[in-house]
Amino acid sequence: MFESSELGHEISKAVYDAEVPKLREALLDAQYDLRSAKAFPVLIIIAGIEGAGKSEVVQTLNEWMDPRFIHTHGFLLPTDEEAQRPPMYRFWRALPPKGDIGIFFGSWYTVPMLARVLEQTDDHAFEHSIGVIRHLERMLHNEDVLILKFWLHISDKEQRKRLRRLEKDRDTRWRVTKVHKLLAERYETQIAVAEKILRETSTGEAPWIALDASDDRYRNLTVARVLHDAMRRRLDQPATAGLVTAAPVLPQVDNVKLLRDLDLSQRIEKDDYKKQLERYQQRFGRLVRSKKFRKRSLVLAFEGSDAAGKGGTIRRVAGALDARLYKVVPIAAPTEEERAQPYLWRFWRHMPGHRGIVIFDRTWYGRVLVERVEGFCSEADWMRAYDEINELEEQLTENGTVLCKFWLQISGDEQLHRFQEREQTGFKRFKITPEDWRNREKAGAYEQAVADMVDRTSTQLAPWTLVEANDKYFARVKVLRTICDALERVL
Amino acid sequence: MFESSELGHEISKAVYDAEVPKLREALLDAQYDLRSAKAFPVLIIIAGIEGAGKSEVVQTLNEWMDPRFIHTHGFLLPTDEEAQRPPMYRFWRALPPKGDIGIFFGSWYTVPMLARVLEQTDDHAFEHSIGVIRHLERMLHNEDVLILKFWLHISDKEQRKRLRRLEKDRDTRWRVTKVHKLLAERYETQIAVAEKILRETSTGEAPWIALDASDDRYRNLTVARVLHDAMRRRLDQPATAGLVTAAPVLPQVDNVKLLRDLDLSQRIEKDDYKKQLERYQQRFGRLVRSKKFRKRSLVLAFEGSDAAGKGGTIRRVAGALDARLYKVVPIAAPTEEERAQPYLWRFWRHMPGHRGIVIFDRTWYGRVLVERVEGFCSEADWMRAYDEINELEEQLTENGTVLCKFWLQISGDEQLHRFQEREQTGFKRFKITPEDWRNREKAGAYEQAVADMVDRTSTQLAPWTLVEANDKYFARVKVLRTICDALERVL
Repeated sequence: MFESSELGHEISKAVYDAEVPKLREALLDAQYDLRSAKAFPVLIIIAGIEGAGKSEVVQTLNEWMDPRFIHTHGFLLPTDEEAQRPPMYRFWRALPPKGDIGIFFGSWYTVPMLARVLEQTDDHAFEHSIGVIRHLERMLHNEDVLILKFWLHISDKEQRKRLRRLEKDRDTRWRVTKVHKLLAERYETQIAVAEKILRETSTGEAPWIALDASDDRYRNLTVARVLHDAMRRRLDQPATAGLVTAAPVLPQVDNVKLLRDLDLSQRIEKDDYKKQLERYQQRFGRLVRSKKFRKRSLVLAFEGSDAAGKGGTIRRVAGALDARLYKVVPIAAPTEEERAQPYLWRFWRHMPGHRGIVIFDRTWYGRVLVERVEGFCSEADWMRAYDEINELEEQLTENGTVLCKFWLQISGDEQLHRFQEREQTGFKRFKITPEDWRNREKAGAYEQAVADMVDRTSTQLAPWTLVEANDKYFARVKVLRTICDALERVL
Repeated sequence: MFESSELGHEISKAVYDAEVPKLREALLDAQYDLRSAKAFPVLIIIAGIEGAGKSEVVQTLNEWMDPRFIHTHGFLLPTDEEAQRPPMYRFWRALPPKGDIGIFFGSWYTVPMLARVLEQTDDHAFEHSIGVIRHLERMLHNEDVLILKFWLHISDKEQRKRLRRLEKDRDTRWRVTKVHKLLAERYETQIAVAEKILRETSTGEAPWIALDASDDRYRNLTVARVLHDAMRRRLDQPATAGLVTAAPVLPQVDNVKLLRDLDLSQRIEKDDYKKQLERYQQRFGRLVRSKKFRKRSLVLAFEGSDAAGKGGTIRRVAGALDARLYKVVPIAAPTEEERAQPYLWRFWRHMPGHRGIVIFDRTWYGRVLVERVEGFCSEADWMRAYDEINELEEQLTENGTVLCKFWLQISGDEQLHRFQEREQTGFKRFKITPEDWRNREKAGAYEQAVADMVDRTSTQLAPWTLVEANDKYFARVKVLRTICDALERVL
């Protein structure tokens, strides 16, 4: 795989000096067009053999373009806020917004590759990491991120020569760390691991560009040219509205039965409710105060038809908790900073650290519910969302997060009744808008969307709980009981 | 001070039940008007004696208003990202945006008060904390934040009764921590400390509301009423444009001499430059790699006339560093999330943790430079900025951050020359805009602004370095030498 990267490309100083000004100008043009179109972000990953000149490439790109709109991120040890969350969290928070360029110097490849070369992980874990990466990059691509991944290659001999040179100089010695030496000793292993990872993650949407880095001028020119051409091509292509990949058609099974079969007549009497509510609130409170929860976190996702009682339920759930430990995140229209990022970014930024509890009032399922039904996104977008959501939830649960998802279901009659009541009660007035009445007319489409959602995202790791919510008491108790059970299973 | 809070206010259930629906409706109205005007944020601080019902008040407010636009923050132990930055950092990042309501349950008062009651700080440190708080609240007020601070009071006897009750119940026992008991034992001391802190921080712009919390209904109604009235009053007042406090007139001293007297003819020959640059880059690199820097951080602030060479200088400074350790933050137009916050918020969010280096390409001084000269903010706004900036910088340096501020000065002729050159060089073209030409015409006003800035913000803790920048080599070497000297002084 790296054979062509050892061909010994060389570029003379004269050619270089003649090329650079033209290339810089073209790069700047592209960067400014990107900036003004704000159509997509560019993500550049710089990886490769130690000593191949990764930091030099980063410096060069910063020098040749307008550095104000380039975000360079080195990823050293994670902070504790990062360490308490899934491994991908730190990369999510560093993603460049639309119109900007992000350079990841060190990336999601660093840890899996290093761990493999140093034989700290087995095949299974390695394959799993690769899967997660492929998944993430595909998602980023679908969210319009232009991804370019550079692998800077030098030969074993060249590496040894360079490291020796760095070590000799008192001021560059620090760059040759123990890890670098360890890697250099295992050059062949490293190449084998890199080959595998590059092969398996060189996809159509995020290809690797492996290049000969033994000549500085060739290296700089190549990276800059590839970057320029990729940006230019994407900028010049006509708007993608019509180009969206055709979505696989969702098999029409009779899955709405699931919802229609719910026994919405279930109810609890007030006295019984009070007793049970208190009991489960106490149990819940004890569980999250337990020692074992200190390295865990809890994410509660609430969805439901309008007026199904999400707010009241959330208040009873929160009522069991110290107000300092939980955060309610209402999902409304995204902010400007959120709109400049991939869809899931605005959920990632709220994910809890150890002992944290986050309650989402509406969630990342918005894409397959309201956005699908109202046509706010393309069919391809919501079709791929199921898979992306499953991946998100898998990462959370792998990280020790307990995740409970609730769909609160009420009957059409009950909804009508509640709407009318809301209109008549002053302080509930804010809960009812003309939109709610409009949504009611689309009940059929919503029902299908909910059924598909449950079908495709109720996984073993993160099952949906359907809550019969015609009786508020019944619903609240069922939600609290479900949370307690889920916590007890893992604590 | 708390005498009137022990008068034993009581409200009957009948009165309460009659009042609450009206109050909720009025509160919601106010909240929605706030939301649609997006004119200011509301910050509610809930403090008081343990057992007085702080969390109950928080719950009630969340229940009576639309919780989606209320951000409740409990402040427990700081995370490491927070602990590495000045104490106020965690509160800055939790500030509510315009149109929203933030509830701080625990706040900047918690630590100073606790430390004082437990006799962990001396008078001096305590006074200092109070000064920092007064300063912060005045600034928030000037940035249109509506601040309401509630102190919930109960008597010694009542507290003991309540804590006993909490301790008896297995499910509330956890709420009575060691700290609570310690505080309860020192009830009188706590009252004395609270009195002092409330007295000294009960300002016109951020008054304390101390209230009798022994009756739950009275407590809830009072907090909600005060909140409602304050929001309503602010919402109904005419736009403040004409109401801005008259700014004190800046004494017109002949301070521009400072700039005019700079010897801009200073220069370094190329060979000498290369040697010195290398020497200082090496020294710089060694300093930030030293053990002592591991608990420190470095903030470099660059300002200068257009074309003074900020970008080139920053590149040489960064050139000495591992790209993973520093971040260049270019200051351009604020984003939507930034515009919804006080002016300094967007700088706070970039402040470095331990070992971090942040290079600001233009800075918080924008307010007293471009915003002053171009009239983007009122005179009162930029006049108060000097003081706010000094406070920011004091907090940084107290936290162990090394701060260097550079003003790069070039002559009018040299600027003209560089502008013309930029227009002729393709890849420098992006650096010159019609705005630059317009700014040139305001050279006099800018000169005065710079002179005032240096006069008022060149403090012992954070002095300005004026850099004679007609010769780029000279400027770069002077900047690097200044950074090295500053680091050496503290390491």
